[in-house]
Amino acid sequence: MSLTDSQREEIEAARAATAPTRRATVPALEALLFAPVPLLDHGFVRVIDYMGDDAAVVQAARVSYGRGTRKVSEDAGLIRYLMRHHHTTPFEMCEIKFHVKLPIFVARQWIRHRTANVNEYSARYSILDREFYIPAPEHLALQSTTNRQGRGAVLEGDAAAAVLALLRSDAARSHDDYTTLLETHGLARELARINLTLNSYTQWYWKSDLYNLLHFLALRSDAHAQYEIRVYAEAMLAMAQAWVPQTVAAFRDYRLGAVTFSAGMLAVLRRMLAGESVAQEGSGLSKREWAEMMAALGRGG
Amino acid sequence: MSLTDSQREEIEAARAATAPTRRATVPALEALLFAPVPLLDHGFVRVIDYMGDDAAVVQAARVSYGRGTRKVSEDAGLIRYLMRHHHTTPFEMCEIKFHVKLPIFVARQWIRHRTANVNEYSARYSILDREFYIPAPEHLALQSTTNRQGRGAVLEGDAAAAVLALLRSDAARSHDDYTTLLETHGLARELARINLTLNSYTQWYWKSDLYNLLHFLALRSDAHAQYEIRVYAEAMLAMAQAWVPQTVAAFRDYRLGAVTFSAGMLAVLRRMLAGESVAQEGSGLSKREWAEMMAALGRGG
Amino acid sequence: MSLTDSQREEIEAARAATAPTRRATVPALEALLFAPVPLLDHGFVRVIDYMGDDAAVVQAARVSYGRGTRKVSEDAGLIRYLMRHHHTTPFEMCEIKFHVKLPIFVARQWIRHRTANVNEYSARYSILDREFYIPAPEHLALQSTTNRQGRGAVLEGDAAAAVLALLRSDAARSHDDYTTLLETHGLARELARINLTLNSYTQWYWKSDLYNLLHFLALRSDAHAQYEIRVYAEAMLAMAQAWVPQTVAAFRDYRLGAVTFSAGMLAVLRRMLAGESVAQEGSGLSKREWAEMMAALGRGG
Amino acid sequence: MSLTDSQREEIEAARAATAPTRRATVPALEALLFAPVPLLDHGFVRVIDYMGDDAAVVQAARVSYGRGTRKVSEDAGLIRYLMRHHHTTPFEMCEIKFHVKLPIFVARQWIRHRTANVNEYSARYSILDREFYIPAPEHLALQSTTNRQGRGAVLEGDAAAAVLALLRSDAARSHDDYTTLLETHGLARELARINLTLNSYTQWYWKSDLYNLLHFLALRSDAHAQYEIRVYAEAMLAMAQAWVPQTVAAFRDYRLGAVTFSAGMLAVLRRMLAGESVAQEGSGLSKREWAEMMAALGRGG
Repeated sequence: MSLTDSQREEIEAARAATAPTRRATVPALEALLFAPVPLLDHGFVRVIDYMGDDAAVVQAARVSYGRGTRKVSEDAGLIRYLMRHHHTTPFEMCEIKFHVKLPIFVARQWIRHRTANVNEYSARYSILDREFYIPAPEHLALQSTTNRQGRGAVLEGDAAAAVLALLRSDAARSHDDYTTLLETHGLARELARINLTLNSYTQWYWKSDLYNLLHFLALRSDAHAQYEIRVYAEAMLAMAQAWVPQTVAAFRDYRLGAVTFSAGMLAVLRRMLAGESVAQEGSGLSKREWAEMMAALGRGG
Repeated sequence: MSLTDSQREEIEAARAATAPTRRATVPALEALLFAPVPLLDHGFVRVIDYMGDDAAVVQAARVSYGRGTRKVSEDAGLIRYLMRHHHTTPFEMCEIKFHVKLPIFVARQWIRHRTANVNEYSARYSILDREFYIPAPEHLALQSTTNRQGRGAVLEGDAAAAVLALLRSDAARSHDDYTTLLETHGLARELARINLTLNSYTQWYWKSDLYNLLHFLALRSDAHAQYEIRVYAEAMLAMAQAWVPQTVAAFRDYRLGAVTFSAGMLAVLRRMLAGESVAQEGSGLSKREWAEMMAALGRGG
Repeated sequence: MSLTDSQREEIEAARAATAPTRRATVPALEALLFAPVPLLDHGFVRVIDYMGDDAAVVQAARVSYGRGTRKVSEDAGLIRYLMRHHHTTPFEMCEIKFHVKLPIFVARQWIRHRTANVNEYSARYSILDREFYIPAPEHLALQSTTNRQGRGAVLEGDAAAAVLALLRSDAARSHDDYTTLLETHGLARELARINLTLNSYTQWYWKSDLYNLLHFLALRSDAHAQYEIRVYAEAMLAMAQAWVPQTVAAFRDYRLGAVTFSAGMLAVLRRMLAGESVAQEGSGLSKREWAEMMAALGRGG
Repeated sequence: MSLTDSQREEIEAARAATAPTRRATVPALEALLFAPVPLLDHGFVRVIDYMGDDAAVVQAARVSYGRGTRKVSEDAGLIRYLMRHHHTTPFEMCEIKFHVKLPIFVARQWIRHRTANVNEYSARYSILDREFYIPAPEHLALQSTTNRQGRGAVLEGDAAAAVLALLRSDAARSHDDYTTLLETHGLARELARINLTLNSYTQWYWKSDLYNLLHFLALRSDAHAQYEIRVYAEAMLAMAQAWVPQTVAAFRDYRLGAVTFSAGMLAVLRRMLAGESVAQEGSGLSKREWAEMMAALGRGG
């Protein structure tokens, strides 16, 4: 992550200024505010603003007149109840806004979450910096042989060097020629940018309510998500943890660490609990479902 | 508007507490925070929380690293530009949350705005207070003779008294019987409530981004909106004015005070500006369109 | 359900007309098209239009050029895979439109599903029929003693008669006075309607994509949903079954009949499967969670 | 646009098959169904499915029981009324689904319309064809000198040839190396694709209701939209014209051909109509607003 001096100064100035407010305030998140967390080779995520806290979830669920005098443990219990029973609207009452710098191919996955508000840096209007994502050697993965959209073993040695060289030279040449198109030929910006590679960095402001943020984090911090978006989800989950710790604790229990068993899996489970020895063949489950179920139960299968 | 003592105390306690924050803060809105503005006979609206300010619109449009050192006049110019050209996403970067007490028939219109977040007081779970909306005599309007969904002259004298008596007695009896159903017969709350009239009051937390708030205000503060929802829109517009004065100024110029002329109306306008005397018959416009156009131009027609 | 003769004729005329189309067509749903299914005492639901079928889900997932020549079993397998892994977007590619007549208190729950398109009969503009929902005696339930938003035992004998008499007389009087307000006093329609009770019937056109329809059906056909909305969900589920049988089969297995176990429940489950005898006290689960888990496993607890 | 033989056959097979339906059917759109309309050098758009017609808008607005026996002219009048007064929900009752092949930089603009349903071809899962957009010489525009996000004069001669050569060679090299990364090195598909340029073609199924389609078309068929997305909007507008001719006629009059005058512009207009000679200096409008207003009135300024 490389910031210019004036960008650093703007961030420091924003961090230095405080004002009194009557609004719900979360010191642990205030401490993180505006500071960029570096991700990948040139990316970052930083919190720009937030609204509400764990108590705001509770107040909305109760349609309260004030903060109330309930105990913290009662609030935590209600939050757990709301999360367990999928009462989603109280979690929509908190809001958070991020500034994110990310490769375009990551942005293309991210933007599919339609409930957020987004302002992206415009390459029709402005010129993109000469920054593109090159994977670290340990993330240079082969195509998975078992999963058509997954990664397998890590590439090593000469092959890895060859791959990195290709990625570097193509991105660099495309950006050099982008500059030539703009500066030498005066081509319209909206046309010149079409020459850039998908690992070029873009940036945006991205704002979401807490419920939809958690939905995003559940999908994108998952082991099946592409590594390059997962690192963003993980950094944002840590920020959410600082912001709404009770909500995130319930989220870890009832979403991240939870498993859904289908009607067919439940039937198998009941037989197993009754002491029956069940094998995939007689289970009524496909091989893949059986493997997923055994993995969830921590069994070899 | 009647608050219980404990509700008053909760509101006062919330107003008394302040904390330092690094977030964008708007003193004029802080001054209003939590305080209910009475509306109709038992309703209110109050601001519970907010995120962002006029500068946040500008920062999002620029994908800024900080608050920047631009002049206020430059920001105002950009906000006017964004509003004029329907660049809506920067206005989505501010958020506001209200607590509203309102009659159910108003709530039914309001909820049609689908982009907001809502937590309503549940009459499946709790018991509704004995409060229902009875129009003030000056709002007791006859059916319009020209507009099938509008109001005409005001009812007066004995007829007005008779109407008010009917409205009062039916709402009171329905609520008394609601209480009987609950207390004497122990009927399930979710069933007993079906006996209530549509002017019973409900309440909710309602949260919206600034763009969608303005869209709501444009439709609901309009002269064609039903009076009983318009008073809410007008109170909320005043709150928005305190919050984001530059944005609301642009909104008044480019939305509230603006008029859209169709292709057909533009053709008429060009003829008029060329000095031609145009009448409805030769205009190509329907009588209604012609009347709407003349009204917009401040002409008798 | 009472239709006027002209309404019956309009429905019959619509059912009688057919035209050739190149679009995906589902004979089992065509057979149901336009015909109202009676619900509660005066309500109904009927399918007005639809787009797509099970194969359309598969085509969208594959971004296909045609219907393909795959086997039915391959399509069913892909649909099951998409449902199991929460790949929701292919199910959004089918659409269905209903005409529904329903009590206003049911409409108020229903409208909270914000992703649908809705056109409601306007009581600002038109006059509501003299129809209101009175529960059948077997649905006259007492407030639950264990669940604040649930129903308990059924009311019987004189108490039941008294309750029904109250509900009937209040609704009838409110509607009679509504007529008086309109006809005798000429009160504006938008004001007169506020005198009606919440069990008055309204109607709307309601359109949803298949994914969001299933989400609605999962929540509203659930045992925790209020009976009066559940009957609509069950009727619509039967229509969906006629429309997209493979999708609904997967939905029954992976949603309706499925159970989600939290991280804490999974830990308990592993101990049980290892042969350990676990009681609520040592489980780390609350009493309520324990009871929910045992119910899911079909155990007394 | 290059289709494989099997793609052509699949399209022909879909076009050849018809079935009877009771649903609203539009022969003029049936004639276009499935047939790709070529756009740019390798793109296309084709209609895959639709629901509803002009009459369906009217039925939803009236919450009708049947198609009714109204005259076509009455329906057209109601559609014009709904469009003029921004009654948007009846237009949401029609739905259309497209299959689109388009460059990735166009897809990135397009996806910002969040209300549509989308299934995109996955480059994590599949391999992208060797197709990339190279502008035709007449669309090779210089950066505008007056509009930071616009195009100016067309590039000609040697400079144009140099620009095209750069665009072609960079896209070709990036795709060649993409193939090398996949085939020679076995790199994961989700990583190899990051080497592709933004003018590579992707494809998706895209489904929208009629209201949101018109909103998309209004923004993207506008003269300020980038040429490469405008051609798609224009082709889709022609398809909408075949589908719902009354709605599109009203849309052309009240949206595409309409102009909104701000409160400030209206004040100027009234002075002009009163015979006053108004210049920009004394108008209260900025130079840019003045120019926009004069352009709308067909005046030099």
